[in-house]
Amino acid sequence: MPQPKILAIAGGVGGAKLALGLARGLPPENLTVVVNTGDDETFHGLHVSPDLDSVTYALAGLTNPDTGWGVAGDSFRTLEALGRLGAETWFGLGDLDFATHIRRTALLADGMSLSQATAEITRHLGITCAVVPMTDAPVRTIAITDSGELAFQEYFVHRGCEPRITGVRFDGADAAQPSPAFADALRDADAIVYCPSNPLVSVGPILAVPGVRDSIANFAGPRIAVSPIVGGQALKGPAAKMMGELGEEVNCVGVARRYVGLCDALVIDDVDREHSGAIEECGMRAVVTGTIMQTEFDKERLAREIVELIAGWSR
Amino acid sequence: MPQPKILAIAGGVGGAKLALGLARGLPPENLTVVVNTGDDETFHGLHVSPDLDSVTYALAGLTNPDTGWGVAGDSFRTLEALGRLGAETWFGLGDLDFATHIRRTALLADGMSLSQATAEITRHLGITCAVVPMTDAPVRTIAITDSGELAFQEYFVHRGCEPRITGVRFDGADAAQPSPAFADALRDADAIVYCPSNPLVSVGPILAVPGVRDSIANFAGPRIAVSPIVGGQALKGPAAKMMGELGEEVNCVGVARRYVGLCDALVIDDVDREHSGAIEECGMRAVVTGTIMQTEFDKERLAREIVELIAGWSR
Repeated sequence: MPQPKILAIAGGVGGAKLALGLARGLPPENLTVVVNTGDDETFHGLHVSPDLDSVTYALAGLTNPDTGWGVAGDSFRTLEALGRLGAETWFGLGDLDFATHIRRTALLADGMSLSQATAEITRHLGITCAVVPMTDAPVRTIAITDSGELAFQEYFVHRGCEPRITGVRFDGADAAQPSPAFADALRDADAIVYCPSNPLVSVGPILAVPGVRDSIANFAGPRIAVSPIVGGQALKGPAAKMMGELGEEVNCVGVARRYVGLCDALVIDDVDREHSGAIEECGMRAVVTGTIMQTEFDKERLAREIVELIAGWSR
Repeated sequence: MPQPKILAIAGGVGGAKLALGLARGLPPENLTVVVNTGDDETFHGLHVSPDLDSVTYALAGLTNPDTGWGVAGDSFRTLEALGRLGAETWFGLGDLDFATHIRRTALLADGMSLSQATAEITRHLGITCAVVPMTDAPVRTIAITDSGELAFQEYFVHRGCEPRITGVRFDGADAAQPSPAFADALRDADAIVYCPSNPLVSVGPILAVPGVRDSIANFAGPRIAVSPIVGGQALKGPAAKMMGELGEEVNCVGVARRYVGLCDALVIDDVDREHSGAIEECGMRAVVTGTIMQTEFDKERLAREIVELIAGWSR
């Protein structure tokens, strides 16, 4: 049978891993990866898109394997020199990474949309599937914390997620619309896959773009999510800490609760098998498998299982 | 006797050498180096000021000794990565150099003038004398050639000065005014020193800023120029080729002719002693000494001779 057309929803590191697995297993025209841009920030006058870049570097085979983000073998000479010139340098930007931000900023200044700039960058890096921002409009994730309201990178990187959050907000989302390729994929895809990304601040901003939540709620095909919380802990990043501070259940059931009405199956790890019943009470199947992606093989295998689940899907 | 207050007029490499010599021999408050910005260009969306940076790196002790421009020990990883992303890379920008352009562009975007951004950058690099752009307004040197009109860096770097020039033009100069510190120095300095920079495209743009030529023509103190043409050849850059193509005498006498009414003494190299008479016919003294600055000692010695000439000056 023909391969399904998949719309993958992704944040940074975890999203990039599954996106790579999906890209290895699907014809490029069958995969659109829509990426959170609520984390975008201006550093040194340059437009930095951490999640777009994590996905891009992963699909281009450039990712630093030690961190899951940034470029393998990168150096930090430009950033160090910026520090000597009086600039703040708490956000790590490598010399190779800087090229991406410089190029994107120049393309945007020349009048391209973020979608167009991203297409230009990914094409030059040999990526053949579509990597698209959730929107071409500026959206800014704000962490509402006991230390005040913090832009996401300030909260996440500069403050190391130390402040206790009481909520998150997506400034600008109300005025945004889905990027053209995202809107097309919401209409044309056979299935939606939520990569194992932070439900609050990676998937949350994407769902906050007007029309997206309704499109997914009314989507005809299967909607499959992979839990980023395994054994009650986030594999990467602050998802567990944030969910706990917001009074949510810190396990895959908490993830399921966030996707009620938007998801038909939650893929959970073997260690979370006990939660299958609670997940099914949320109105979705629980699919139990190994979800930890350490190797290229892990990424391809999990993606293949998801594609097979979709191919064999019947409501 | 107290040291004179000197306004040094500089382009890139040659200007930077004498500026360093002067900086070593004078209290910092006695030296203002005004620098050509007609060569400025936007690369990758960043404001690049080649001459300001050559002077800045020289005074900060950062200059690449092999080239006279750029930063010693620089690498080119960001530029190479930009090339992989589809950007043009014929203008060499190192990773450390990029920091300067990124910082300057960010400071300008934050509302600083080029003077203020330059002061911020030079201060952080430990430079204590004033390094100032000729103007805060955009001025663009255009080479009028047999291959059409070319922006200066296109002519100079991309085309390697190969097209034959028929003239130069300084777009935007008519609407410019001297930068505040340049205007102050034109009023307050005890002497003006033209560094051995290209008279057409390094000193020329500075003289083209409205009011500058008149201020120098009416300047009360001594005005000393150092010939960048030695033995009929430019020590660096296209000055000799350009002067020849414009039908000017390609030696220190041709330099003197460009500075008639704006200069009281032309410092020429020992090898050009024979031209002393022709220079004095231009209405200025010929001062013969070694003008080739290869070592730090050469730069300091030539600067010291000029300062002594100024200190002992009587019209």
